[in-house]
Amino acid sequence: MDLTSLARGLSAPAGFVEASQVTPPPGTIRLLSGLPAPEALPVAAIGRASAALWQDPDAAVAALQYSSPHGFTALRDWIAEREGVDPHRIVITNGGMHGLTLAVLTVVERGATVAVDDPAFPGFPWALEVSTSAVLPVPVAADGFDVDHLAGRIAAGARIAAAYTVPDFHNPAQATLSAPKRQALVELAERHGFYVLADNPYRELRFAGQDQGVAVLNASDRVIHVNTFTKTLGPGLRVGWLVLPEHLVDPVIGLRNRLDVHTSSVTQAIVERVVTDDYDKMVGHAVALYRERAEVLVSALHEHLPGRFEIQAPEGGLFLWPRLTDDGIDPAALFQRAVAAGVIYQPGEYFGPSWARHLRFAYGDRTVQELTEAVRRLAVAFA
Amino acid sequence: MDLTSLARGLSAPAGFVEASQVTPPPGTIRLLSGLPAPEALPVAAIGRASAALWQDPDAAVAALQYSSPHGFTALRDWIAEREGVDPHRIVITNGGMHGLTLAVLTVVERGATVAVDDPAFPGFPWALEVSTSAVLPVPVAADGFDVDHLAGRIAAGARIAAAYTVPDFHNPAQATLSAPKRQALVELAERHGFYVLADNPYRELRFAGQDQGVAVLNASDRVIHVNTFTKTLGPGLRVGWLVLPEHLVDPVIGLRNRLDVHTSSVTQAIVERVVTDDYDKMVGHAVALYRERAEVLVSALHEHLPGRFEIQAPEGGLFLWPRLTDDGIDPAALFQRAVAAGVIYQPGEYFGPSWARHLRFAYGDRTVQELTEAVRRLAVAFA
Repeated sequence: MDLTSLARGLSAPAGFVEASQVTPPPGTIRLLSGLPAPEALPVAAIGRASAALWQDPDAAVAALQYSSPHGFTALRDWIAEREGVDPHRIVITNGGMHGLTLAVLTVVERGATVAVDDPAFPGFPWALEVSTSAVLPVPVAADGFDVDHLAGRIAAGARIAAAYTVPDFHNPAQATLSAPKRQALVELAERHGFYVLADNPYRELRFAGQDQGVAVLNASDRVIHVNTFTKTLGPGLRVGWLVLPEHLVDPVIGLRNRLDVHTSSVTQAIVERVVTDDYDKMVGHAVALYRERAEVLVSALHEHLPGRFEIQAPEGGLFLWPRLTDDGIDPAALFQRAVAAGVIYQPGEYFGPSWARHLRFAYGDRTVQELTEAVRRLAVAFA
Repeated sequence: MDLTSLARGLSAPAGFVEASQVTPPPGTIRLLSGLPAPEALPVAAIGRASAALWQDPDAAVAALQYSSPHGFTALRDWIAEREGVDPHRIVITNGGMHGLTLAVLTVVERGATVAVDDPAFPGFPWALEVSTSAVLPVPVAADGFDVDHLAGRIAAGARIAAAYTVPDFHNPAQATLSAPKRQALVELAERHGFYVLADNPYRELRFAGQDQGVAVLNASDRVIHVNTFTKTLGPGLRVGWLVLPEHLVDPVIGLRNRLDVHTSSVTQAIVERVVTDDYDKMVGHAVALYRERAEVLVSALHEHLPGRFEIQAPEGGLFLWPRLTDDGIDPAALFQRAVAAGVIYQPGEYFGPSWARHLRFAYGDRTVQELTEAVRRLAVAFA
């Protein structure tokens, strides 16, 4: 009744989004969500930062008053140094999804088409509904987003406002966009005047292979580089950032002034102290944990379900994206048997219609014992 | 270049918005912004709540993980009890402006007309640009928003999607909407099918006069009641709430899922502990401070500038809205002389073209010494 067309146009939670919100029966091992491990969250460091904040009268009052829509200066400076850009190009957001939506509302006209990873992190097409639902799927290969495919579609007449991809440790496909393809994607965007929305929440979580670099992304005035502390310090903080081309800073700030004024001064004051404390050590601890978990999961699958999956060992991030090798297995029936056996994951179909033979296992927030037991239960489902 | 029509349609900061961001010369006494007094912010209580949070391992991890888009349960329960509504109707927001924008995006179609207080809190028409810039000004009298005027305009053919007013301690006009006019406004909205956006950040700050009640607002499925902890616990937290009609809860949550997922779990965990600690005492302390400041300001104006202003003593809130009595005085020249004398305020013209003979003095965050000195400097500007 009397809703805006915007509000009426938003789809109800379904597939991945619905599954992420489901509470499975007690005892079920959840391989559902790309959450950081509770043991990897720097609770002690955050507690220290927080205590220092509230014991400093000036800082405490500043944390309770309004602050800049751009974000805290020292925090932006720290991020800018890591990103290798001028601090003015950094805008602090309320986490990754907020950054993506600000980007979409700023550069994706209503009804425009956006090229999107296929398979895709389903949260992005969902968020994209604030502007449009016209998606041009672009396959993700072992070395990431298929830039040639997109170039071909554009040559054939497709017009896009933006291209969305997760460049590092793709969700769900594990892939990292290769350095040559980063360059090619940026050149394509500059030639055809669309924006690249590079969504990079897993970037810090590398435990194998070679970093493919972000300098080429941050050097282009056609790239909006979206990141967040969600996977390193915790999603509950709701603190992330955008690396914006200079000419988009004012438009994003103008929008953000209306939407939510600024990110909490309290959480920014805490994060600012935590990152300038011992951030790399904290992240290193988390990454070691994720490496071990990925290895345990892969080993257990090879041991208990030999030959059942085509598996690529993760180089980082929080996901394994194995493919069923036996075409005789019905993935939907397997999923039902897995849930009955006490393990739950995201079926591949939730990430795009052509991915039904994949399974997404999120291993980051499960212990090695849980992961081993999860594979045993999966073996029961196969039996 | 390649901005959305939404981004292109946002106006640059001007008037009030620009003035709020200006840094005047050192030593200038700022009567500019409706900020809470630093001394009234419950830093100690927030420090205690925060320490308790980070020392509780389960609560700490929960505060760093995702939480519900609706908000923390105990916080919603506490708010719901004070508002006298079912907790399901409460959605926690990132402060008042975020609540207003969520409301606008949900019920104000692009290009629709919205009835707005005249004079208006300039932040609202500014935020309204995310949907429309079509405003129907409705005069604010001593007893608030002129409901009869709006009824007349509607009878004459005006069609509105919503009506915006600040019911308690109006910004800038000080007025509180009388109980009969609250009832009349709700009836008008129900009869004609528009929404009332009741923006109520000053509600807790009453130090004189009679509360006019919010039950009639919260009982209607045509009212979105917007509030925030900004004026009581501090704007830097960015924690507020909406009291929504039942049928708008899901649409607002759907939108909010895309815009920013949820309000920081960290700030919610802190606020939840603070409000269930000794909230009424904290607010009582702040209100006593504001009462004293309002009285000092009014007395000093009577003493040092007798007869120069038509003054209504505030019953609460953070603003005085005096009117120049001498039509021979040029308000713009007075403002320049005041700034030169070392005091700055918001000229009435920023709140609407017919209010140039008013001045808005924000007294909440100034000490009694500063307020007295500000009036002495103002007397210099008059001399």
